[in-house]
Amino acid sequence: MITKKEFNEACAEALQMIADAGIVLTLEDREKITAADFGLSNLRKEGIQILTMFETDRIAGKILVLFPNQTEPEHWHPPVGNDPGKEEIIRAISGDLYFYIPGEDTLDKGFIVDGKSDCYTMRHEVDLKPGDQLVLPSGTKHWFQAGPAGAVMYSFSTKVRDTLDQFTDPNIIRETKIVA
Amino acid sequence: MITKKEFNEACAEALQMIADAGIVLTLEDREKITAADFGLSNLRKEGIQILTMFETDRIAGKILVLFPNQTEPEHWHPPVGNDPGKEEIIRAISGDLYFYIPGEDTLDKGFIVDGKSDCYTMRHEVDLKPGDQLVLPSGTKHWFQAGPAGAVMYSFSTKVRDTLDQFTDPNIIRETKIVA
Ligand SMILES: [Zn+2]
Ligand SMILES: [Zn+2]
Repeated sequence: MITKKEFNEACAEALQMIADAGIVLTLEDREKITAADFGLSNLRKEGIQILTMFETDRIAGKILVLFPNQTEPEHWHPPVGNDPGKEEIIRAISGDLYFYIPGEDTLDKGFIVDGKSDCYTMRHEVDLKPGDQLVLPSGTKHWFQAGPAGAVMYSFSTKVRDTLDQFTDPNIIRETKIVA
Repeated sequence: MITKKEFNEACAEALQMIADAGIVLTLEDREKITAADFGLSNLRKEGIQILTMFETDRIAGKILVLFPNQTEPEHWHPPVGNDPGKEEIIRAISGDLYFYIPGEDTLDKGFIVDGKSDCYTMRHEVDLKPGDQLVLPSGTKHWFQAGPAGAVMYSFSTKVRDTLDQFTDPNIIRETKIVA
């Protein structure tokens, strides 16, 4: 859980980072910003800020913001019925962004969250500079982290089913409780 | 058909408009820019410049550029087998952009291409300012036009099948011949 104050500050800071990245947002867009702590109650360490630009039954587009050294926990998008699972394309907009996917251990610029080695099993590092993109086929395990400058990125995908996402960390709950 | 010179100039100008809109492109991205005249041989009147950022079997993301007063001809994305047809989301980035979709005739800021009234049958105008977006459900007839400043926009969609797109203008060929 996070406090209302913490939530509001995170949202405001994320909107500022999006503006600094040169992205024009309408008032309607700005109201869609949210923050997720994955039930771990340590938003700025493991968490993410999300602005869903559009989401239909077939396709979605989001802006994701990571604060400096913030980490999005390892997860994957499993198949559901006839759907092989969410396919995701990441496009880096600004800042320092490291993605971790299946492959040889090349972890160098990022770091494993303290004491959570079992929760971050992918160690193949992809360093995404502004304008770089990465296609994550359905089912690909991934986690990502910002460097010291934080990071702003687009995430485009097939149908979103957040509640079905699977996380390596058994303590994760895909819900952010905001307390007064 | 358009000349190689005309094609190259259009591509260079479109890349400049994308850069002016604040979008960072990698060298690899820049090489993907192209121009389409729809076989009408009058690119700057009826045509468009396209940079495909990504295209998989399920999802695609493009940057579309219209020069001042340039018009993308009326078309729709028909169903194919189990696919109800391409669903498209437009997000305006910069410039003046007018979309025409089914609905009451509100055409005001844009214009019908000279002598081609039969080829532009949708007259419901949606004025998209930077940051505005428009969802085009499968099968929706649409055409669009830039105002005096030109326009840069994102187009995100489900699977692209350009060769199956249908156009109101019977003279259109979905192929751009480039001649020396
Ligand atoms: Zn993901
Ligand atoms: Zn279209």
